[in-house]
Amino acid sequence: MKKRISIIGASGYSGAELLKILFRHSNVEVTHVFANSSAGKRVDELYPHFRSVTNLVYGEYNIDKIKNDDLVFISLPSGEAMNFVPALIDAGKKVIDLGGDFRLQDARLYTKYYKHEHKAEKYLSKAVYGLPEWNKQNIQSAQLIANPGCYVTSALLPLLPLVKENLIETTGITISSLSGVSGAGRSSSIDLSFTEANESVKAYKVGVHQHTPEIETVLSDFGGQKSTVTFVPHLIPITRGIYSSIYTTPKGNISFEQIESAYKKYYTNSPFVRLIGNAVPEIKHVQYTNFCDIGWKVYERNNQIILHSVIDNLVKGAAGQAVQNMNLLFGFDETAGLF
Amino acid sequence: MKKRISIIGASGYSGAELLKILFRHSNVEVTHVFANSSAGKRVDELYPHFRSVTNLVYGEYNIDKIKNDDLVFISLPSGEAMNFVPALIDAGKKVIDLGGDFRLQDARLYTKYYKHEHKAEKYLSKAVYGLPEWNKQNIQSAQLIANPGCYVTSALLPLLPLVKENLIETTGITISSLSGVSGAGRSSSIDLSFTEANESVKAYKVGVHQHTPEIETVLSDFGGQKSTVTFVPHLIPITRGIYSSIYTTPKGNISFEQIESAYKKYYTNSPFVRLIGNAVPEIKHVQYTNFCDIGWKVYERNNQIILHSVIDNLVKGAAGQAVQNMNLLFGFDETAGLF
Amino acid sequence: MKKRISIIGASGYSGAELLKILFRHSNVEVTHVFANSSAGKRVDELYPHFRSVTNLVYGEYNIDKIKNDDLVFISLPSGEAMNFVPALIDAGKKVIDLGGDFRLQDARLYTKYYKHEHKAEKYLSKAVYGLPEWNKQNIQSAQLIANPGCYVTSALLPLLPLVKENLIETTGITISSLSGVSGAGRSSSIDLSFTEANESVKAYKVGVHQHTPEIETVLSDFGGQKSTVTFVPHLIPITRGIYSSIYTTPKGNISFEQIESAYKKYYTNSPFVRLIGNAVPEIKHVQYTNFCDIGWKVYERNNQIILHSVIDNLVKGAAGQAVQNMNLLFGFDETAGLF
Amino acid sequence: MKKRISIIGASGYSGAELLKILFRHSNVEVTHVFANSSAGKRVDELYPHFRSVTNLVYGEYNIDKIKNDDLVFISLPSGEAMNFVPALIDAGKKVIDLGGDFRLQDARLYTKYYKHEHKAEKYLSKAVYGLPEWNKQNIQSAQLIANPGCYVTSALLPLLPLVKENLIETTGITISSLSGVSGAGRSSSIDLSFTEANESVKAYKVGVHQHTPEIETVLSDFGGQKSTVTFVPHLIPITRGIYSSIYTTPKGNISFEQIESAYKKYYTNSPFVRLIGNAVPEIKHVQYTNFCDIGWKVYERNNQIILHSVIDNLVKGAAGQAVQNMNLLFGFDETAGLF
Repeated sequence: MKKRISIIGASGYSGAELLKILFRHSNVEVTHVFANSSAGKRVDELYPHFRSVTNLVYGEYNIDKIKNDDLVFISLPSGEAMNFVPALIDAGKKVIDLGGDFRLQDARLYTKYYKHEHKAEKYLSKAVYGLPEWNKQNIQSAQLIANPGCYVTSALLPLLPLVKENLIETTGITISSLSGVSGAGRSSSIDLSFTEANESVKAYKVGVHQHTPEIETVLSDFGGQKSTVTFVPHLIPITRGIYSSIYTTPKGNISFEQIESAYKKYYTNSPFVRLIGNAVPEIKHVQYTNFCDIGWKVYERNNQIILHSVIDNLVKGAAGQAVQNMNLLFGFDETAGLF
Repeated sequence: MKKRISIIGASGYSGAELLKILFRHSNVEVTHVFANSSAGKRVDELYPHFRSVTNLVYGEYNIDKIKNDDLVFISLPSGEAMNFVPALIDAGKKVIDLGGDFRLQDARLYTKYYKHEHKAEKYLSKAVYGLPEWNKQNIQSAQLIANPGCYVTSALLPLLPLVKENLIETTGITISSLSGVSGAGRSSSIDLSFTEANESVKAYKVGVHQHTPEIETVLSDFGGQKSTVTFVPHLIPITRGIYSSIYTTPKGNISFEQIESAYKKYYTNSPFVRLIGNAVPEIKHVQYTNFCDIGWKVYERNNQIILHSVIDNLVKGAAGQAVQNMNLLFGFDETAGLF
Repeated sequence: MKKRISIIGASGYSGAELLKILFRHSNVEVTHVFANSSAGKRVDELYPHFRSVTNLVYGEYNIDKIKNDDLVFISLPSGEAMNFVPALIDAGKKVIDLGGDFRLQDARLYTKYYKHEHKAEKYLSKAVYGLPEWNKQNIQSAQLIANPGCYVTSALLPLLPLVKENLIETTGITISSLSGVSGAGRSSSIDLSFTEANESVKAYKVGVHQHTPEIETVLSDFGGQKSTVTFVPHLIPITRGIYSSIYTTPKGNISFEQIESAYKKYYTNSPFVRLIGNAVPEIKHVQYTNFCDIGWKVYERNNQIILHSVIDNLVKGAAGQAVQNMNLLFGFDETAGLF
Repeated sequence: MKKRISIIGASGYSGAELLKILFRHSNVEVTHVFANSSAGKRVDELYPHFRSVTNLVYGEYNIDKIKNDDLVFISLPSGEAMNFVPALIDAGKKVIDLGGDFRLQDARLYTKYYKHEHKAEKYLSKAVYGLPEWNKQNIQSAQLIANPGCYVTSALLPLLPLVKENLIETTGITISSLSGVSGAGRSSSIDLSFTEANESVKAYKVGVHQHTPEIETVLSDFGGQKSTVTFVPHLIPITRGIYSSIYTTPKGNISFEQIESAYKKYYTNSPFVRLIGNAVPEIKHVQYTNFCDIGWKVYERNNQIILHSVIDNLVKGAAGQAVQNMNLLFGFDETAGLF
């Protein structure tokens, strides 16, 4: 029997991508899509690419409606999931939150970077960090999964093995990331209008982006060493994709092969991580997929190890990774619906 | 002595383009820029490309402020210029309006297409239509100039000589135009966001665009024959530029050379019209210029004459043409500031 | 047991798209990919997005290699398929040709538009035109299927019901189409370089494109009336997608509903045609899908019926339609692998 | 009397941009444009945006043709200028070379990075490095000016004041740069085709780009301290512009204001450097201009000073800077032709 799935906040880009993946997934059915601002509208009215694919209609959320559902995805702007999660958890529901509300265990850190109070602080400890390549066992038995941030995923996958294996210094790490505009969500600001964003580039939230503490705490927790990073995101004129160029300092003489060994140690059984060695990743190679491609280079002249990674921000950076987590949670094949 | 110029509505894309051209124009100085929503802000705060180019600050409009000015440009959304023009005209000021309020002589037609009443109907007859290639003498002595619409300019320049010379049927003319997103103005709608507009195309206002009656009336007035057109604009993912492909029916056997003769008859002394014959225009050849390139083809198999034209919507389609009109008005060289 | 599939010419964009679809298709396996210029290279060397998806290696074509295969796709530049098809047909193989060599039954017409002789003229009559919505029965029993051209598909699907039902004039039809750059294939000309194609538009092969006779003959054959069209393709700066705006003259007074009835009559059981009525299609709604969206408008003011259609040129315009044909040929569900 | 100017290699993008600027420059006239591969063609045949702007025809180069000229610009691929420069210098001509052949004083370094021998080694010492903001006096009296590389300009302008004032460590400097595709020149490789470059990003020549030694030697020479950099260029899907994000380590506690003071010390009289402090630059603010915008941030959490700079690669990164050098050489206003 198919698992019954609801989505709260299904009208944004991540929610729509989630729908697209779930519609192709043979083990699940989507029973409800909630989006208060669009309640009453058909999904294919907001997203006409779904015409003749689904008859679903956005509804207003009510916890009673989902009592027979097996899993709830939440895909809302930061600060909103915390209004829904406590009741869901108390009702025994399984939840995967694609937003940032339950990624940081420290509520003060959350407030500092997200600029508002955390209203469900005591539920933070129930959240399992949903990076499947590093937390599979906990995910399989979790009730509440905090799906990682898009930039964070692109940074952690190349960095974690090197931190864990003690190959790089854990201070001074510099992450220079480029993101397509869909990362900013379905929004109507002048800054994100075609005329403003096209044929240009700008860095933003330099050093103060809310993904910074997420990168640092997961790197410290899973990598086993206190880590500090400089994270600088840039907006570039593409729709989908993240490119991260990461500059690190080796601990002593580290060879290309040592890095390769570290990556193979952790990713041999990870179907969505592709190690490409001396090659450089390109965004187009992962667009519309759940892959993360990682390349690396030892740059002895300036005593650096340079890492490059690419993901699709809406797939491995959001909806795809969420489905990967769902697959683990339900004991499906990890790649189900994702190839 | 330099002419003193004010701009009402200088915070949109056409206003900013106008400023850029006027700053390079050696015969004028910009004295005031009015934009109520941005009053108090520096121009280079809204448009940082003007940093170190100008110290102008947006002000709130008051007719007293411009009493020593020689010309007022108005660059406002439709329906707003009509609030300013009557007093300006009564005060004896020269005005060039880049918007649509004074392009149609028939207020009912205006209301039908612009969807609101005309509030300065009796000033319509004072407006001179600012298509320099066809109305030079009237422009030189005008007090109020209605600068043509962007699509309209791209359609009229290739069509008028053929209508005037009686070479094509004046019913059934089909104008299929493509416009860059800047044509929609500096706006914040989701539809015009990068993520929505990029990598896509859509037609809009099919057959009901407000430039339709403008094309038809000018074609009828200047061409000397009652003309009906189908005008279908499409939004394409470029920032600047209009491409018009125009499908017409010849009146009998019309040769390539007859068309060429018609064009040469009317455009030999037009510095901004470039006749390229059998070649097809490309938007990049006119971007950031005041040129309109026109190509044509006699397609006997299906009894058509096919015309193609390109302009930069912000230059020949708006600010550049406005400056061309100003040059004529003040007796400057027609191309001053525009090469 | 899975059907065994070979592809000749698997190194171009259509071939790569075909591979992507076939890899997801549960009823087939790809046994050979032939591409002489890339022989010996792995598929994922040319197309790194296939890393960890396939280990296939391009080989040199030899008919002996495919003796156990059930179907051969050919995806080659025009003029090359005709070198392979005769031997394949004589050997009793089933063939789907994505190129133009077997779409026109008249070899002289082929030579006129493709600018070279046809070398397999006597096999032309064996070819079945692979437009599933109009030729399903013949496709199901075909040995050689000529997959339609991309522009052609976008033009025929909206036009055929109206011609067949006698609702529009069959002379003077004007098809103004916009195509993404991938339609030009994987090529290295300066004209198609990013710097040249970006932020611009140009019409090309105005009235002489090789898809013109294909549109006309199929419209005449399937529509039942001799038809003449003006077809003007334009290159626009997107990667994938075709937008066709089609201008026709109604035969007398034709209502919106009559058109709707005609469409419903022919497309009610066509899973990939979506009728959107008064709405206008957008390329993004069909990108990466096998759908064709069709909208229409009766424009009485200028006595026209205006049609708009969109497809993804690499899917419904090439590889997706080819798989749809394969599905019919093998008796699979028509949509297998395509949702 | 106007200065007479010739251009060798006028058929590439930098050459065409140079022409555009020179045509607007009131103190010069272009007498010859040489481009052997295009000899006999009109300039407006290759670049139709010049239609009706110039009647110049590309010619085959011969030193006799330029005997009455005052200055020769060379805009050729690396390795070619060295074939022309010796004879020109011996003939007493003034030369500005936009390519890389005379930027490095050390021929071995040239060979290492450019992968071919230097054939005019003894002329290297005659070359003056054409970064006007740092070498004005030498430029004014030079015979041979080596115009800086595009990436180099974007890196040196923000870095030099900080190195010179001893505010940052001169090892471990990391320069992560993004360039539009026009930086790769007018070329026909598949990699640079629209379909391949659009909607993607890739790093390239990681740590081995030929601009690396140029950045290091000029930083060391003009900054007064031996400097080592990691330089990683990325190709992004825009036509024009370079974005450099530069990560450096402060020497002790360095404040925002100390950096500001250093910048003001060196750039107060530099008309093309705009200091924007805490703001972040955007490529669109400098496109089609000769400006370089510089922003900076002290990032104490990770002990870094982060710099951002933007230029238009074809203007301040090539043709604009070349004209700025020409202005200094001839004693014109430094900004002539450039606003």
